[in-house]
Amino acid sequence: MKIEHLGIAVRSLETSDNLFARLMGKASYKRESVEREGVTTSFYKAGESKIELLEASNAESPIAKFIEKKGEGIHHIAFGVVDIYAEIERLKGEGFMFISEEPREGADNKLVVFLHPKSTNGVLVELCMEKS
Amino acid sequence: MKIEHLGIAVRSLETSDNLFARLMGKASYKRESVEREGVTTSFYKAGESKIELLEASNAESPIAKFIEKKGEGIHHIAFGVVDIYAEIERLKGEGFMFISEEPREGADNKLVVFLHPKSTNGVLVELCMEKS
Repeated sequence: MKIEHLGIAVRSLETSDNLFARLMGKASYKRESVEREGVTTSFYKAGESKIELLEASNAESPIAKFIEKKGEGIHHIAFGVVDIYAEIERLKGEGFMFISEEPREGADNKLVVFLHPKSTNGVLVELCMEKS
Repeated sequence: MKIEHLGIAVRSLETSDNLFARLMGKASYKRESVEREGVTTSFYKAGESKIELLEASNAESPIAKFIEKKGEGIHHIAFGVVDIYAEIERLKGEGFMFISEEPREGADNKLVVFLHPKSTNGVLVELCMEKS
């Protein structure tokens, strides 16, 4: 399990892409919209991991709701796994709860699934696996 | 700049070490108290990065205040840098603010410094450098 990426909720990609480019010392290397999730994303490389900025693309977006409740900031941590189905089974066996148990398509050519933060100390944890 | 670690504020290391060992599929590999910071830490390896659980060791601890205000959850992201002094100068030049500009001793044999979340989109960013 490596940290595949860290998701950060931002109000405006325009503003935050400028900020993170200065912070990281390099520009975002890609933007991608995931309409079904209601987000537009922007990615930065950080060693073997990535920083993923998340902007809401509509008012019902989970990112809009997160920012309304908690303000901008770190939204989730994503662990990269080799076999997401096996990992879901392992974690269910350990008593963890999932927001939805069926992996679905996320940004960056990944299958993703989220654990429920109630079962993970308030941390929203994503598992993701490269799509073959 | 790689993600050196991700700091997670927890109420109880006893409870959360049990939870994260099950989540990560492996036990914490070390605990360390940093009295000056008012924290006890517990570390897990995740690829080239680490997960650092943080428990307050007194009521005045920044971690106690964080949990009081926001609840348990992701507290900060730490980027590993080769030259922390050069990186502070670079980021000051880019207009970033620091909580304190002088690096001090953190956990895990590191010199650490924190950027002010007001200048970093609500994200508490730590820079850390291995002590020689």
